[in-house]
Amino acid sequence: MNNALTGMRIVEGSAFVAVPLAGMTLAQMGAEVIRFDRIGGGLDARRWPVAKNGLSHFWAEMNKGKKSVAVDMRDPRGKELITQIITAPGKDAGMFLTNLKVRGWMDYETLTKYRSDLIMLTLKGDRHGRPAVDYTVNPALGFPAITGPEGSAEPVAHALPAWDCIAGNMMVSGLLAAERHRLRHGAGQNVEFALKDVAAAMLGHLGIIGDTLTGGAKREKCGNALYGAYGQDFICADGQRVMVIGLTRRQWDGLVKVTGTQAAMAQIESRHGIDLADEGTRYRFRHDITDVLRPYFAKRAVSDFAAAFEGAGLTWSVFRDFETALAEDPDLTDDNPMFSTLDVPDMGRFPVPGSPLEFSAHPRQAPVAPPALGAHTEEVLGDVVGLTDTEIAQLFDGGVVQSPLYGTARNAA
Amino acid sequence: MNNALTGMRIVEGSAFVAVPLAGMTLAQMGAEVIRFDRIGGGLDARRWPVAKNGLSHFWAEMNKGKKSVAVDMRDPRGKELITQIITAPGKDAGMFLTNLKVRGWMDYETLTKYRSDLIMLTLKGDRHGRPAVDYTVNPALGFPAITGPEGSAEPVAHALPAWDCIAGNMMVSGLLAAERHRLRHGAGQNVEFALKDVAAAMLGHLGIIGDTLTGGAKREKCGNALYGAYGQDFICADGQRVMVIGLTRRQWDGLVKVTGTQAAMAQIESRHGIDLADEGTRYRFRHDITDVLRPYFAKRAVSDFAAAFEGAGLTWSVFRDFETALAEDPDLTDDNPMFSTLDVPDMGRFPVPGSPLEFSAHPRQAPVAPPALGAHTEEVLGDVVGLTDTEIAQLFDGGVVQSPLYGTARNAA
Repeated sequence: MNNALTGMRIVEGSAFVAVPLAGMTLAQMGAEVIRFDRIGGGLDARRWPVAKNGLSHFWAEMNKGKKSVAVDMRDPRGKELITQIITAPGKDAGMFLTNLKVRGWMDYETLTKYRSDLIMLTLKGDRHGRPAVDYTVNPALGFPAITGPEGSAEPVAHALPAWDCIAGNMMVSGLLAAERHRLRHGAGQNVEFALKDVAAAMLGHLGIIGDTLTGGAKREKCGNALYGAYGQDFICADGQRVMVIGLTRRQWDGLVKVTGTQAAMAQIESRHGIDLADEGTRYRFRHDITDVLRPYFAKRAVSDFAAAFEGAGLTWSVFRDFETALAEDPDLTDDNPMFSTLDVPDMGRFPVPGSPLEFSAHPRQAPVAPPALGAHTEEVLGDVVGLTDTEIAQLFDGGVVQSPLYGTARNAA
Repeated sequence: MNNALTGMRIVEGSAFVAVPLAGMTLAQMGAEVIRFDRIGGGLDARRWPVAKNGLSHFWAEMNKGKKSVAVDMRDPRGKELITQIITAPGKDAGMFLTNLKVRGWMDYETLTKYRSDLIMLTLKGDRHGRPAVDYTVNPALGFPAITGPEGSAEPVAHALPAWDCIAGNMMVSGLLAAERHRLRHGAGQNVEFALKDVAAAMLGHLGIIGDTLTGGAKREKCGNALYGAYGQDFICADGQRVMVIGLTRRQWDGLVKVTGTQAAMAQIESRHGIDLADEGTRYRFRHDITDVLRPYFAKRAVSDFAAAFEGAGLTWSVFRDFETALAEDPDLTDDNPMFSTLDVPDMGRFPVPGSPLEFSAHPRQAPVAPPALGAHTEEVLGDVVGLTDTEIAQLFDGGVVQSPLYGTARNAA
């Protein structure tokens, strides 16, 4: 075992995207991550997409490489076990990630009675503690109003749960920052943040708050155009759609050169008395530019210009649906060392991603298939809580814990 | 100074969203972050949105709380200064973030000659080193094909640079993980990752790869509906649009109860022989559900049901544009402790976000206004590189470095 976070143990009580993604990201950097769920599975146990057998592709991928423990948390002994797992000793343990709102036995104040240097991170909906999900935060802050076809009044929400994905990665950073502090000063802490605040902060970071409140032009939908410089989608002669980028001066000059549109672009400049070397001017006059470029693409199949575009180092891509992307793109196959094709139990055989981060001091860690719900219950009760086989057997017999593998792990050992 | 990362020094040579966001995020957790640019500014110095005076709101926000250094990197002495800044001694220094592709003097191999335990993180376009931006990665992998109105064949790209925002936060995690390793084992390292891989991995993490390659139903556009359970937008009597969520059982039951649609939902169930308690069934029969709920909203203004929805703890929101959100939502004002209204030099006065993360062991760090380009050149040359006033004066005189504040910092001290 040699990975950036090898030796760290993190406990996760979670559901849906952000917090499971945080734990999975840590697991893929080498941490031991124990996710606990109620018996039968938590709120996301059946989250779509699901396989025909009802198992959730979503749950499987979000929990790969973790240890899964299933506990009846209505039972006082179950609560006690979760408390023991979260607060188990170890210099590199005592870290807990959650988005479950459990007051009392599972809150920071109570848990720190059992381990005073606990690091706990909680993701809330909004800062007031009200429920919020990506699907509500996003419309509330305005992004759907600038998404979609130019001129349309219909708001379009993103299909990617972007705020969740950002929040999950932010939770990883918050954990590592808090653990760095604990390592040096001995003190754990409680870290809280809200999904809505993650989005609200980004509104500021992207300059939208300052622009909007100081009299900037109203930000309108611009279809698939790149905002603020040049970038546009075009339909090609073979029916394919491509995106071409002229954000930087180098990209723009390259695009004009390869498409042989220097003279036509110069005409736009002289007609309007403008300089397209300025990126904002390219955005303001993007329709003129697009009119010039459209015939180039309308007359050519992608295969007619792909080599020239690559040779010139242009920044561009084709539009694809998931099926086509997965069929055509080697970056989504084992050709990409980030992926390993795995037999995922009961789900099928397909490429599974590891961490995008490539650490030179550690070999790439191949992705580990997801656990069955509760698969590590016995192991964790033994190794982390320190129970005897007899005590563990009593818990299984009493229905306080569950595992589809009960008995197999110890018998094999 | 008491923040999670106080004492850390990180150097950043960057442009656009992801890497500047990474540095800014670290600065807002207490790290000293030095961003260097060429004289006159880098590739993102004029990135939109821009103020009427031409200054970039984007650049300002992405660099708040950083120290800015402006150096002529075509000059050999300029290259040497950047090398010295990146590799300056200090146990908590020697960390470098970049998305600039500079071979030779600024690559990992060369820089480690000056500091062997350097930690360097590089974000590439794709894994092959080809250029890629959020605007090209996103269509290539298929998300625009599932975004937008149901039944439409037109792909819709997101307006939020989501992959960049995710990659930036992932860079923070990668840095902290590598620094944790260095703290324990003394060894720095080179960490690389690609924007396209960040998106490709997420395609897997969300279960889309497994679903698509094992014969799942083709993922289609579903407008603003929540995928896989129930969630839908409705137009209200006052013309406002709301999003209501019935993802979990509790949310769904609450929505049906508050809208008084139990009987109508039971009719759907008996008509089709289904059970809407199953989340996937709610998605498959979402149009029937929506038909039942539509009149409820069509007859009511938001103010007619808002209190009841809040009282029942429903998960819902209104759709707003940026202007309305900023005018109406206290979460986007100083009422939210994450924001501080600042006078940003030459940009205006508006709420500026700090870190969403609230660390109990550290007071909230108020956001720090962005630097003018090169504002800390003199300070960094003195404090980090260790040059004398005479040496610094020669560099300014020779045009190797620049600062709008040259002389003022030292004179004030």
